[in-house]
Amino acid sequence: MNATYDVVGLGNAIVDVIAKSDDAFLQRHALAKGAMTLVSAQQSERLYSDMGPAIEASGGSAANTMVGVASLGGKAAYMGRVFADQLGQVFRHDIRAAGVEFATPAAKSGPPTARCLIFVTPDAQRTMQTYLGACVEFSPDDLDPAVIEGAQISYLEGYLWDPPRAKEAFREAMRIARAKHRRVALTLSDAFCVDRHRAEFRELIDTSLDIVFANESEILSLWQVASFDEAVRACQAHPRRIWAITRSEKGSVVIGDGLATHVAAERIEKVVDTTGAGDLYASGFLFGLSRARPLIECARLGHICAAEVISHYGPRPEVALATLAAAKLGG
Amino acid sequence: MNATYDVVGLGNAIVDVIAKSDDAFLQRHALAKGAMTLVSAQQSERLYSDMGPAIEASGGSAANTMVGVASLGGKAAYMGRVFADQLGQVFRHDIRAAGVEFATPAAKSGPPTARCLIFVTPDAQRTMQTYLGACVEFSPDDLDPAVIEGAQISYLEGYLWDPPRAKEAFREAMRIARAKHRRVALTLSDAFCVDRHRAEFRELIDTSLDIVFANESEILSLWQVASFDEAVRACQAHPRRIWAITRSEKGSVVIGDGLATHVAAERIEKVVDTTGAGDLYASGFLFGLSRARPLIECARLGHICAAEVISHYGPRPEVALATLAAAKLGG
Repeated sequence: MNATYDVVGLGNAIVDVIAKSDDAFLQRHALAKGAMTLVSAQQSERLYSDMGPAIEASGGSAANTMVGVASLGGKAAYMGRVFADQLGQVFRHDIRAAGVEFATPAAKSGPPTARCLIFVTPDAQRTMQTYLGACVEFSPDDLDPAVIEGAQISYLEGYLWDPPRAKEAFREAMRIARAKHRRVALTLSDAFCVDRHRAEFRELIDTSLDIVFANESEILSLWQVASFDEAVRACQAHPRRIWAITRSEKGSVVIGDGLATHVAAERIEKVVDTTGAGDLYASGFLFGLSRARPLIECARLGHICAAEVISHYGPRPEVALATLAAAKLGG
Repeated sequence: MNATYDVVGLGNAIVDVIAKSDDAFLQRHALAKGAMTLVSAQQSERLYSDMGPAIEASGGSAANTMVGVASLGGKAAYMGRVFADQLGQVFRHDIRAAGVEFATPAAKSGPPTARCLIFVTPDAQRTMQTYLGACVEFSPDDLDPAVIEGAQISYLEGYLWDPPRAKEAFREAMRIARAKHRRVALTLSDAFCVDRHRAEFRELIDTSLDIVFANESEILSLWQVASFDEAVRACQAHPRRIWAITRSEKGSVVIGDGLATHVAAERIEKVVDTTGAGDLYASGFLFGLSRARPLIECARLGHICAAEVISHYGPRPEVALATLAAAKLGG
């Protein structure tokens, strides 16, 4: 069956609020460095009032990934819930302007559009505090089954297990995709997120997933093992899945048919802000899969996209990734 | 009399929406490159829907200048009108987080917070389309006379002559400042803005101003002359005013007591986005004046601040200007 989309992403639709910070600030507010922590509206406002001058940029993990897929020349769609407010308009504008199909209607009652306060320390690490806002309204009613049926790959955020009804949407999307023999991918999102939903994530991996994205701390948390090698072996025990495990500057390990291969990261001059690194790695990898490229080339595409996004502030690419990838891969 | 503030700025309180663009886009939409054009809410929305992915950052000319003064270590205050919406909260947060006193209450009825769509072309030039929104509500009632009385210099945007009642606030602020023998500064803001208000600006210069900021096209427009030399001579004919006239990479010409001096611009590696160049030049110059520095040093401070802001996207400094200035001026 022909596909209308290369990839459809489902996720928490979030506007990022990004400020430079220092480690003293993180300590003063007891923030878990490098992690994504959920906060209430009140906590978010309190933290914002103490935050330095910021810029706003559309974010959301799967949304960033879809923007990357579109920038590579892929056909991408997205589903997620914003509120009918100014930040919701910003989110909708930016994802559409990037060439991603996005038709989920804005909520007209309930909490405002989600925001993620991102504190970028001088070591380029990002620490995220998310107020989920309108994302808690995301439900199976927000799915467009025709889009999911028409997408080669459905890409789901682990973060979707945090808002109460989004996991129902997540499960329903998987059901729709699998009924049409489409592939389903999951990103584990965050080590603490894995902690919150480990049993369910493991069950999904056993029953419903084709592709899993994780970073090192997430995969250790998933299998509750102490070493990376043990984690890889645990993944290899699921030979019918594709695993893409990122390791920052150490590159990534790709596992397919039970075989594991290391792929080097791109060299870059200066890492400015690691926000979006994993999201954009997934863009390259998924785009490569949708074009039936070998897994090693999918991983290289992932590293090329990740290198672009960590060389500047903000979670989305600033250049056309298709041009960049062609230059790096020679066409 | 001791001063509570070094500088108080009055201006249009605006959130910038910044996107990369190309000359073809400007031509297709018939945008006046390098200028600030006022647009209606409908025009702004139409243009936004065709704009690429953007980031949001607090802007507003005099607001940017006050942030620069604070970043240099000066005591700065600001007055301007936002609406009680998300962009208004962003504006208020950012200027306060930068250390600027800002207490003008948000409008609770009327149009939303002003936004300026900024199209940055590959030559680093910015083209601005402003929807004034809540700025049209700015009136003399929004002034805090004690702040103006307590500020060494009141700094006013030429742009304030665009919203209907803001010029009344502008005139009232001048009256308050002059009654306390404080100095009053004006920036001509934009060549088209000068075109719209030339007669009144000339009358202000004759009667009420101590310091005038302009760039080359603005000063030519003010005096309706064809050459820069003629414009300088016209300024010199007002010997009791200080004039600071910026000329991009050619530096600036400073005129005091009728004497004109050229001051070189700072060398910088790469100009990324010229948004805020004039605003931050004014920061350095005004801060220098408030510390009774010689005019040439005021201009050098201006160039140091301008060089920082044009080396990245966005209209406000990303580093502590006090540290930068100390490194450059050796003090």
